[in-house]
Amino acid sequence: MKLEKLVGDRFKERPSECLVDSHALMLRGGYMKFVASGIFSQYMPLRRVCRKIEQIIREEMDRIDGQEVLFPVVMPASIWQESGRYSSIGAEMFRFKDRNGADLVLGMTHEEAAVQLVREYANTYNKYPFMIYQIQTKERDEARPRGGLIRVREFTMKDGYSFHTSQEDLEQYYEKCHKAYERIYARAGVPEVISVKSDSGMMGGSVSHEFMLLTPIGEDSIVICKECDYRSNMEAADSITEVSDYGDAPLTKVNTGDAHTIEEVCAALKAEPKQSCKAVMYQKNADDSFVIIFLRGDLDVNETKLTNLLGCDVHPAAVDENSGIAAGCTGPVNFTAKATLLFDSSLKGGKNLICGANEDGYHYTGLTMERDVPGVEYHDLAKATEGGICPVCGKHTLSVSRGVEVGNIFMLGTKYTKAMGMQYTDANGELQYPIMGCYGIGVGRLAASVCEAHHDEFGPIWPKSIAPWQVHLCCLRADDEETHAYANELYNKLEDAGIEVLYDDRNVSAGIMFSDADLLGIPLRVIVSPRNMKEGAVELAARDKSFRDKVPVGDAFEQIVKKVKE
Amino acid sequence: MKLEKLVGDRFKERPSECLVDSHALMLRGGYMKFVASGIFSQYMPLRRVCRKIEQIIREEMDRIDGQEVLFPVVMPASIWQESGRYSSIGAEMFRFKDRNGADLVLGMTHEEAAVQLVREYANTYNKYPFMIYQIQTKERDEARPRGGLIRVREFTMKDGYSFHTSQEDLEQYYEKCHKAYERIYARAGVPEVISVKSDSGMMGGSVSHEFMLLTPIGEDSIVICKECDYRSNMEAADSITEVSDYGDAPLTKVNTGDAHTIEEVCAALKAEPKQSCKAVMYQKNADDSFVIIFLRGDLDVNETKLTNLLGCDVHPAAVDENSGIAAGCTGPVNFTAKATLLFDSSLKGGKNLICGANEDGYHYTGLTMERDVPGVEYHDLAKATEGGICPVCGKHTLSVSRGVEVGNIFMLGTKYTKAMGMQYTDANGELQYPIMGCYGIGVGRLAASVCEAHHDEFGPIWPKSIAPWQVHLCCLRADDEETHAYANELYNKLEDAGIEVLYDDRNVSAGIMFSDADLLGIPLRVIVSPRNMKEGAVELAARDKSFRDKVPVGDAFEQIVKKVKE
Repeated sequence: MKLEKLVGDRFKERPSECLVDSHALMLRGGYMKFVASGIFSQYMPLRRVCRKIEQIIREEMDRIDGQEVLFPVVMPASIWQESGRYSSIGAEMFRFKDRNGADLVLGMTHEEAAVQLVREYANTYNKYPFMIYQIQTKERDEARPRGGLIRVREFTMKDGYSFHTSQEDLEQYYEKCHKAYERIYARAGVPEVISVKSDSGMMGGSVSHEFMLLTPIGEDSIVICKECDYRSNMEAADSITEVSDYGDAPLTKVNTGDAHTIEEVCAALKAEPKQSCKAVMYQKNADDSFVIIFLRGDLDVNETKLTNLLGCDVHPAAVDENSGIAAGCTGPVNFTAKATLLFDSSLKGGKNLICGANEDGYHYTGLTMERDVPGVEYHDLAKATEGGICPVCGKHTLSVSRGVEVGNIFMLGTKYTKAMGMQYTDANGELQYPIMGCYGIGVGRLAASVCEAHHDEFGPIWPKSIAPWQVHLCCLRADDEETHAYANELYNKLEDAGIEVLYDDRNVSAGIMFSDADLLGIPLRVIVSPRNMKEGAVELAARDKSFRDKVPVGDAFEQIVKKVKE
Repeated sequence: MKLEKLVGDRFKERPSECLVDSHALMLRGGYMKFVASGIFSQYMPLRRVCRKIEQIIREEMDRIDGQEVLFPVVMPASIWQESGRYSSIGAEMFRFKDRNGADLVLGMTHEEAAVQLVREYANTYNKYPFMIYQIQTKERDEARPRGGLIRVREFTMKDGYSFHTSQEDLEQYYEKCHKAYERIYARAGVPEVISVKSDSGMMGGSVSHEFMLLTPIGEDSIVICKECDYRSNMEAADSITEVSDYGDAPLTKVNTGDAHTIEEVCAALKAEPKQSCKAVMYQKNADDSFVIIFLRGDLDVNETKLTNLLGCDVHPAAVDENSGIAAGCTGPVNFTAKATLLFDSSLKGGKNLICGANEDGYHYTGLTMERDVPGVEYHDLAKATEGGICPVCGKHTLSVSRGVEVGNIFMLGTKYTKAMGMQYTDANGELQYPIMGCYGIGVGRLAASVCEAHHDEFGPIWPKSIAPWQVHLCCLRADDEETHAYANELYNKLEDAGIEVLYDDRNVSAGIMFSDADLLGIPLRVIVSPRNMKEGAVELAARDKSFRDKVPVGDAFEQIVKKVKE
């Protein structure tokens, strides 16, 4: 391929809308173009990167006996009504009608389609286990697309669905797929991807893992124990705290004046926030009724755990005078307003704490949970914290990092097979519901994440396995006949040998040529120039700067092939 | 791959809803499953056939310097408003709104997206020519999906778009692409596909060709000259007729009683239909105003030519008393009702013809066009006919066949670049609009067409190049230890050699095994059985029945590899 004809502009200035480097570099390097919010067209270099990623995924899925199928992008609402998700999923699902008024949706995931495809086929136990997967366009009407390919509304995804007759069999396959995912990331050049325990969200099911590339631009918070194997998405991370026992003290009402935030109140009473019980207020989306979470003053509410516990969505509360709630002075003692009260485990056994007195300008000191708020149930509703206690090894060793989710796997159980009436006859002739797992990887997001992990200020540094081309051949001063003739010959020879070459023989300066090469990020650069020719040499340089050699003209072809294959 | 675990049911009974064989065989063979009208999921065998077709297309597009890109499935209405097609395309385009109320469409074709992708990039003449293509899901809300994969609402398509600075350059590339398409069909196993002149329809542009597989189940009528190269879709076929000169006669009103159809009137007057001028009535969709086409009595109106001439859509007329039109007795003389009158070329120079007298129960004889309806303009509005005159060689050599369109190519001209404001600076510094071509192939329809062309009553007979697997290995009586061990060994050896093997070692009868093999249509069948083993032989048989040999056990592997590669 000649660079001269490669469609797509490359440019120097970082577009002002780009908050993450991969987004900026993919626009600057002519990888993609904005079409609408969260929707891009791909130019050839990105298409090639994505196709190579798809092929790696396909090979690894085939290796664990995956069968490649294809589900439709457009689906009838009916199968989503069967599963119940037509109503439980919100605005993120695109919905519309066809010319006959039938309700349709765009696929954001394909559990329903997978069950629809196999529910008549897989009617006896001996057809199990099996896994079907597809690589297909997905649509999701994200509220806030961001970061280029990191969070988009249209994307290519590999999604796989396995079906089993026992939990043990699912667990074995889940583990196999976990290993396949590790191989995929390693082959794509990001072996540093880690798996973390995650919340199952709208997929349902019990155990699930996310594969995370740790990077400051990540949207997720990941809790990692520095001592043991514990790794979890913040959404699913247990919060363990020591008992806040500040000794015996009577419950005493004190005037705290204008102090309303827990920091102000604690400062006024000369106590650390840990010695307080704060109130965080939400309202249920459905009926705006109040939900108040009491937790230790230095902790934050984990909204995922909260909505999982409530079984419904909430939003931060807007407290007005009619509510009867004394905002800024709310506490668990003598609370009389109408609200659901929830208690975080961090308060369990707490003694001599500060809390609101439900009267404007007043707080209590000496709050002792068992004595003053007896008989309440405690739930884990707080976010894990940096330096917090690891729920596995019990040490104060937690750290919190940012990560991009580049894949996820779920044990779904029988949620979909039950809802959609898929059954098989077991060895005893009894009808049973098969147990499912599902396994997803976003192709474009993985490409962007690799770019995020491997780039410098000049462009991406693509790993060999997914680089758009294998060799970037620069012919400097193509107006020099001998130089151009040699470069042409080398280009043809490499192409004939099946090497993917991007050949730049434009009549431009070395500066432009090399900055374009940096933006295209091809691992091996070969430079043919009159100066090198005079020395009888060709220059080979790695995009990642790991080497820069001159090799004799006569050896160049073999050396290049060797570098490509090694 | 073991057949035992291949997801998908195979069965014997032809589903009653199937009107075409490929549809029936693809359901019976576990290739696909109905999801909604015109929307299917693909099981592994069809996915593999389609992926091989996609790869053939990709290689041929790359060979003519195509650059693979990817446009979105979901597009903002705005770019379709720019081209004007947001309003000109009807119900076949899926339209909906996102969560913010923005208008979106699903891509049924991507001219707009192609121009959007390159309009800033291709701003000077030296960036031309280039061609970009994608292989992507398309959505089209067909009024009447039919024939399985022949006419669907969701399909995978390769669509390419080329950009040029001169008509000559477009024509050269168009020809190159025409040849690439011929190679694609040949490689996919249907070299018999022919190209025909076609109507450009909603694409716009001047010259266009459709690639047609002639088959009785085709939806299109193809006009072919038996003597010369002339081939055209009926929609675009010129209609040439000899002058209907029946001598001199005065215009005479005659009572024709209850005779209303042209056949009844001609029978009553003892004339052949050729000697008549019939009236065919339509109404414009926009305002229901009447359009009456006068043409020779033995011909039919070509509605494509009619709507092209009118520049708007029409529907067959519903004539009521208020219209002032004497239905069944309408003629061009003394016509006083309100309507647009159009005259087909077949009437030009007509003498002594029969026509309606615009009075119920009366017709004229002796109609002589130049004398009785002077000064009218004639247009080609009739369908070409079997045995009609070839517009190229002028002989009565036309035949009409049915065909399935398996691809199309269009010279688009500047329709989209002008509408969307895409310009480049030419060598003289002047701004110009680039000239476009576009090139489409539906992958699933091609798969179905190959099946249509190559099948027997038992199943598809896949060409080697696109067969889902290369070898179908049957182990009869896998309960026989020696037989099974040998078959296992052969399977592993073939797989290790990179041969694609579907291995059937189920404990089922030879009848079931072979009928399943027929449905899967794999070109080479290998049969390992106790009986063959006793003879020290393995049986090799072609799905297309071109050979059936026994080879010594020791030679089997090499013979199979040889057959696969030849």
